[in-house]
Amino acid sequence: MGYIGGSAALAGKRAGLLGRVVGYDLDSEATATALRNGVIDEPAASAEAAVREASLVLLAAPVGSLQGLLTDVAPGLAPDATVVDVGSVKSALLATAESGLTSGQFVGCHPMAGAEFVGVEAADAGIFSGRVCFLCPPRNARAEALAAARDFWAGIGCRIVAIEPELHDRLMAAQSHLPHVAAFALAAALAAELPFLDSTTQVASPTTSLRDTTRIAASGAAVWRDILLANASHVLPLVEQLRGRVEEIGRAVAAGDGAALDRVLLAGRACRQRLVKE
Amino acid sequence: MGYIGGSAALAGKRAGLLGRVVGYDLDSEATATALRNGVIDEPAASAEAAVREASLVLLAAPVGSLQGLLTDVAPGLAPDATVVDVGSVKSALLATAESGLTSGQFVGCHPMAGAEFVGVEAADAGIFSGRVCFLCPPRNARAEALAAARDFWAGIGCRIVAIEPELHDRLMAAQSHLPHVAAFALAAALAAELPFLDSTTQVASPTTSLRDTTRIAASGAAVWRDILLANASHVLPLVEQLRGRVEEIGRAVAAGDGAALDRVLLAGRACRQRLVKE
Repeated sequence: MGYIGGSAALAGKRAGLLGRVVGYDLDSEATATALRNGVIDEPAASAEAAVREASLVLLAAPVGSLQGLLTDVAPGLAPDATVVDVGSVKSALLATAESGLTSGQFVGCHPMAGAEFVGVEAADAGIFSGRVCFLCPPRNARAEALAAARDFWAGIGCRIVAIEPELHDRLMAAQSHLPHVAAFALAAALAAELPFLDSTTQVASPTTSLRDTTRIAASGAAVWRDILLANASHVLPLVEQLRGRVEEIGRAVAAGDGAALDRVLLAGRACRQRLVKE
Repeated sequence: MGYIGGSAALAGKRAGLLGRVVGYDLDSEATATALRNGVIDEPAASAEAAVREASLVLLAAPVGSLQGLLTDVAPGLAPDATVVDVGSVKSALLATAESGLTSGQFVGCHPMAGAEFVGVEAADAGIFSGRVCFLCPPRNARAEALAAARDFWAGIGCRIVAIEPELHDRLMAAQSHLPHVAAFALAAALAAELPFLDSTTQVASPTTSLRDTTRIAASGAAVWRDILLANASHVLPLVEQLRGRVEEIGRAVAAGDGAALDRVLLAGRACRQRLVKE
């Protein structure tokens, strides 16, 4: 029950889609906050206990915990329960889910909502409105489970896009995972300059360039560790490209080679124009 | 006469600070656009011709052209002319200006305004309002020239901050120049995925992560080539840090080393929290 899970619960309640919401979190403080803020109606003592009697189960944990969580909840699932997640990587989990569940039905989901916020205290029912929600049903999906997943996300305002897991993961590597790598690396690269920058806050506030390029580095580190590891096959070649382009810029600047620098900057500019048509 | 120079001329006119504005640009199309849009009142045949009779001269060209431009206009300058610029790097130009001008007075300026737009057709009088304008007067600065520079930028809405050129250049390397390196490199790194991404535009529009992290890669490549080269001494160690952090992430992902990945992501997140206090 963090930022995304909490937001989805609030949105579902507001839309009248949910009856009683039972929540479980490893962190008892998060559970207490969720209860206090009306995100859940009732805490459970375990993941398995939380899903008993549930018709819709939302797994909203870092990608790396999802396989284990799915195994944990499996014994408690009702036969007609629909299990959805919100993970940024879909291939690996779907492979497990297709073979692993003897009761209930898993439908991989990824709502493209949210921001760099962390924790259930930031939960916001409004973040899904108008956003895409990717749906990756397993090959053996039952029509009822698929409809339940669709109805939930569409009911809280998402536009449903069905997509192959592999295609989803490749798309996210480029559109989201690599940008996060760049933002975290950029922020971390300024570590040694922090005392200097702190000493200049009287003189100038952070530039919009710095704000925008590092915004998503405020995202949860554990969430992004899991995403990058789970999508390694698509992420790694792009990280290698990013490293190569940074190195190219460094070499050109060191050599005072304006023509070489022009080439990579112009390539970057041309790519940006095609990536985001404004 | 590009985006920043054009915007400054429009802002100065709107504030009633400028009489007749005479403009010169290497590109005759830019000159025609500037005349048509009321950015200038009169075109000149050369930089030297443009500055004759001027009390205030604004050099708004890529940083790498400024030394040559200063030399070009020098013979035309009136004794009491004040020459200002808008460059993102200050040390090198000030060294020349202190020794080079026999007439007129140079005052290094850097208004922290503008965005990723390019060309005089994007000129906008409103971009300076409330923004910092750094002032780096040369050691031999006359009080009248200093006042003229201050009055112009303050008159179009800037908050004036006097700063040592070295301090300015170090601050900009961290707050602006490295973020541009990261954005250009990130956009360029996605080059090979462009055909794939183009094929998915029906499915999903660019994420806000991608938009924000690459926004400034739409900036002028020639402008940024010159800035990075002119500020190489401050930029290079930071580019090396960025390369190192990207490499670290890549190594950790390749090795499936969650602890190592945690370390760099947590460091990035902690830096971001200190860089931009929200």
